[in-house]
Amino acid sequence: MAAIRPKEFLMIPGPTPVPDEILEIHGRQPLGHRSTEFSGQVELAVQGLKWLGETESDPLILTASGTGAMDAAVANTINRGDRVLSLVCGVFGERFAKIAEAYGASVERLTVEAGQAIDIESVKKALAADTGKEIKAVTVTHNETSTGVINDLESIARVVKAHGALILVDAVTSLGAAHLPIDKWKLDVVIAGSQKALMLPPGLAVIYFGKEAWKAYDQCNNGRFYLDLKRYKTSQDKNTTPFTPNVSLVMTLVKSLEMMKEEGREAIQKRHIEMRTMLREALIEMGLKPVVEEGNASPTITSVWPPEGVSVADIRARLKGDYAIIVADGQEDLKGKIFRIGHMGYVFPRDIGMTINALATIFKSLKPVTRS
Amino acid sequence: MAAIRPKEFLMIPGPTPVPDEILEIHGRQPLGHRSTEFSGQVELAVQGLKWLGETESDPLILTASGTGAMDAAVANTINRGDRVLSLVCGVFGERFAKIAEAYGASVERLTVEAGQAIDIESVKKALAADTGKEIKAVTVTHNETSTGVINDLESIARVVKAHGALILVDAVTSLGAAHLPIDKWKLDVVIAGSQKALMLPPGLAVIYFGKEAWKAYDQCNNGRFYLDLKRYKTSQDKNTTPFTPNVSLVMTLVKSLEMMKEEGREAIQKRHIEMRTMLREALIEMGLKPVVEEGNASPTITSVWPPEGVSVADIRARLKGDYAIIVADGQEDLKGKIFRIGHMGYVFPRDIGMTINALATIFKSLKPVTRS
Repeated sequence: MAAIRPKEFLMIPGPTPVPDEILEIHGRQPLGHRSTEFSGQVELAVQGLKWLGETESDPLILTASGTGAMDAAVANTINRGDRVLSLVCGVFGERFAKIAEAYGASVERLTVEAGQAIDIESVKKALAADTGKEIKAVTVTHNETSTGVINDLESIARVVKAHGALILVDAVTSLGAAHLPIDKWKLDVVIAGSQKALMLPPGLAVIYFGKEAWKAYDQCNNGRFYLDLKRYKTSQDKNTTPFTPNVSLVMTLVKSLEMMKEEGREAIQKRHIEMRTMLREALIEMGLKPVVEEGNASPTITSVWPPEGVSVADIRARLKGDYAIIVADGQEDLKGKIFRIGHMGYVFPRDIGMTINALATIFKSLKPVTRS
Repeated sequence: MAAIRPKEFLMIPGPTPVPDEILEIHGRQPLGHRSTEFSGQVELAVQGLKWLGETESDPLILTASGTGAMDAAVANTINRGDRVLSLVCGVFGERFAKIAEAYGASVERLTVEAGQAIDIESVKKALAADTGKEIKAVTVTHNETSTGVINDLESIARVVKAHGALILVDAVTSLGAAHLPIDKWKLDVVIAGSQKALMLPPGLAVIYFGKEAWKAYDQCNNGRFYLDLKRYKTSQDKNTTPFTPNVSLVMTLVKSLEMMKEEGREAIQKRHIEMRTMLREALIEMGLKPVVEEGNASPTITSVWPPEGVSVADIRARLKGDYAIIVADGQEDLKGKIFRIGHMGYVFPRDIGMTINALATIFKSLKPVTRS
């Protein structure tokens, strides 16, 4: 017989905790997707997403992972042979570059070391070197999930738009948590995923597609059907979807946007910054070193180097075993080297306090070990 | 204040009713997708899908609509300029042809009138005319959702495989309801969706990818990333997924496959045939005419011509208003001309009886009207 255990708490960078009001909707019988009731939900979701992104861009709702929307961002704007500049500060920046390559683009990478933010001066230099204005698009990660860096997207976008290229933004772990006014910053394409700051289970992605992006679409000749964004635009303009969507997640999206509107965009952003600061200060006080320096630290993910002689695996196992708190390992080159604490969406300073307390207790008891 | 109303019952060809046991799982907090718990679920889902399809093909699980899997079937086997023969007996057969065209294939259609099944002799003739064996693949709909035709897939596959072409099968509304032994019939690619006979909410698709299909994959050069099936295969071989999947639906899939295993494949198929026969006999007794003749009638969808002078809109409105039973309109050319009753997945003869009774009462009271 299983003992009574605390409820598992996901402090990973997605999936994130889901509010009970949303789980309740997720647990209902699905609506028919061609019903007037469901069309009403599509309309509300689109309105809410425009409010959230402060934009008149089309927020197209895809039944897909966030990577599906990243793929669609490329597949609908970039042709084989087009030049793309990819700003890479971690795993997801690299993924965007790989997607562009998968579509045959000629990709130039501007890569910084893990934990660093994109350097604006290098971006300026790379674009200035493109005297023939051949670079068609720049891919950039707003908030790099693998390290917990938030990039200065406003400044990057200013430079890119001044050059005349498209800017394609991965905002999977920032939209709904960090300041991101799409129209004010002139972002052409912005993508997000349901299982992050939107407080939903995974399975839905959003891609904001702006006027300049639609111009590129008209010149785009990639083979595509399911991710052909015009199909979504045409259907959504009539409050419907081109294919059977994940109706449950669309309905939960309406609810989460309603909850977010009630809290307010600025209040949500402030809460995330407060959690970041609270967590960083406590970690530093414990003698730990965050991977990212203060000025570039993400409001949604904090990466930490483990104490000397203590393994990431042990920290994660103790947090899970003793406290039912789940944090993430590093990814790829950083696997086993750092651990990552997600604090986005339905997470509050109270929960950060819980995690800090658990970590402090664990570190006191964990004896440094030498590992070969 | 809303009156107490009967629970809405979806008798459309998807989404279909979802069992309470599955809704309960769907309403839980999502698991982290990189946890050992979730890997266990992926393993069980793959095992269950192999059992269901009677196959050693790889059942790859996509977070997408069924159309996403149809797209993947083409994107991973057909190159620009390749010749494809598309067998079209309705909207979804035509969709498969359009997807092949979206990827630049040279598509030849073998089209039959709505309500008819694919004619084997025409398929034989079309393939015999391809003396240079240039036709690389044949697309076919096992069960045509827009009309309620089930095609003789076993015979079609025999002819196609004898010719040496790949056979790509849309089994969205047949897998899990109709006899479909993938290996025995030598089907190279078979796709299915969660919201049909699998008894789940929409948002997940399955694509069975066989040995011959992988050979075509190796020669395939389409731009693709999210729908690149090798990524799914590589991850699933390690009981994981390449991107954040819809973890809730994967978990419900494990449960639905467990429930299906308990009932048994043959018993499920028998139940669906029983519902088809029961419904057709009752409709004919009411003086109505099914769209599809007995021999080609689908076990999962029954289309009907409305009585003379009675509109499809009225029938649907009365069924919904008086009985909270939802049936579907015709699609495209058949919109407003036929209505379609879905009976797949978590549906039983009891529910067919309920629908027959409601229809009989409605037809008695509906006076034929002349509409301009």
